[in-house]
Amino acid sequence: MSDAAPQDAGVPFDDRGLAYGDGLFETVLVRDGQPLLWDYHLARLQRGCAALGITAPDAELLASLPAEAGSGLAVLKVIVTRGSGGRGYQPPAQPEPRLRWQLSAFEPRREHWQRGVAVRHCRLRLAEQPALAGVKHLNRLENVLARREWSSPGIAEGLLSSVGGRLVEATGMNLFWRRNGHWQTPRLERCGVAGTLRAALLERLAIDEVELEPAALETVEGLCLGNSVQGLWPVIALQSASGEPLGRWAITHEFRALQQQAHALLGYPSYV
Amino acid sequence: MSDAAPQDAGVPFDDRGLAYGDGLFETVLVRDGQPLLWDYHLARLQRGCAALGITAPDAELLASLPAEAGSGLAVLKVIVTRGSGGRGYQPPAQPEPRLRWQLSAFEPRREHWQRGVAVRHCRLRLAEQPALAGVKHLNRLENVLARREWSSPGIAEGLLSSVGGRLVEATGMNLFWRRNGHWQTPRLERCGVAGTLRAALLERLAIDEVELEPAALETVEGLCLGNSVQGLWPVIALQSASGEPLGRWAITHEFRALQQQAHALLGYPSYV
Repeated sequence: MSDAAPQDAGVPFDDRGLAYGDGLFETVLVRDGQPLLWDYHLARLQRGCAALGITAPDAELLASLPAEAGSGLAVLKVIVTRGSGGRGYQPPAQPEPRLRWQLSAFEPRREHWQRGVAVRHCRLRLAEQPALAGVKHLNRLENVLARREWSSPGIAEGLLSSVGGRLVEATGMNLFWRRNGHWQTPRLERCGVAGTLRAALLERLAIDEVELEPAALETVEGLCLGNSVQGLWPVIALQSASGEPLGRWAITHEFRALQQQAHALLGYPSYV
Repeated sequence: MSDAAPQDAGVPFDDRGLAYGDGLFETVLVRDGQPLLWDYHLARLQRGCAALGITAPDAELLASLPAEAGSGLAVLKVIVTRGSGGRGYQPPAQPEPRLRWQLSAFEPRREHWQRGVAVRHCRLRLAEQPALAGVKHLNRLENVLARREWSSPGIAEGLLSSVGGRLVEATGMNLFWRRNGHWQTPRLERCGVAGTLRAALLERLAIDEVELEPAALETVEGLCLGNSVQGLWPVIALQSASGEPLGRWAITHEFRALQQQAHALLGYPSYV
């Protein structure tokens, strides 16, 4: 793939994506030029554009991008902004949205698939903004601040709860757990990003969207994290934000079955 | 002033200001090359950098920028981002912050100083995120969505309340009102931008920081909006989000006295 396609050029000073985070993005797993979960990515981008009132990019143009990746695994990152200008926060009368994209070679964390990961709770609580919940927009300072809470490579992810005291997601992945024999995942009406792998699993499997307090995780039967780029990671250890151990889990047959379903959607291996 | 200084160049695709809104900005009124309320702008930018963990730009370099404006009124917009790269939300180990700025000729809304403005309540409620409250960061989608709620040029601003049901600010200005003979302004511990004109007035005058529900505005003795670029506007009419009239106010001597103090800080005229 090209390192210097004109499309991965930057944006001008007056771009509203830079000025206000006024835009959206997608990161898409691409294998041998073929995008995975493409319909879900396209649908989420279109929903996000509708939520912000931005004209969505042409679907055919978007669909032509992954092919540029050539062979092997890559990630396509697409950024759509409202474009330039306007008077302060007020968008221009006729905005011209700006599309930028970049293809990068990609190597998933295969060891995490097999052996699982340790995670911790984050101190930061996600604010609740229903007007932006679920949308993969460019206002991601909360995720950045949460990810800055730890640097140990032994901690793979941080779990985020809302100011209302409910589990939401991890900094860059969705969260699933098994409780009373059922897979569950947090509802995302008030905050969080509605992941495409999550959406695809919700359509195919019996996974309940529920509200749960973080303390209740210590009694779940299993816990895992997933997104459309990394696949599904079992959580084998959970720590508090100050590093105290809160739980340990073995990797169960039930997790391997869920992982198999998820990885089939991404062309990743299963360990059943 | 130059239209094409290299500093108002854009940012590359991988800049974290574009990717995540991972940065800060300031807009500074400049008269004949001299910045107004400069110490307040510098202090807020430095506080914001500390809140996000970004190394603040060199203060001497920043202080040299307004002089490039030449004669007349201008606005200096400064953007500081965490720079390029990192692994997803995780910043790079040694970030290299990126500084961009632009000088633009500026003409304040003089008619608003004298005759006052009509404003409305916005439907959108600001989420409460204490970790980012007061900071002029680049995650401004709420302001953009709120500003998109109306297009009538007869409405100069929209008032924003929090999800917790308290008045916070206007989309691009701070809010003040007079109640029981005292000037008051919303507390900003949970959301909102702590304006530099607001900070300068709080230091000099008896203005209380309080919590107030939007409905209580209908009984205040006067209401005004201000920022460091536009100065202070009296509100003469308030509408609900659906356009119903909620209140009308005459422009009082007390407002003119406050405006005189504010405008003295900005070199703007008074109408006492």
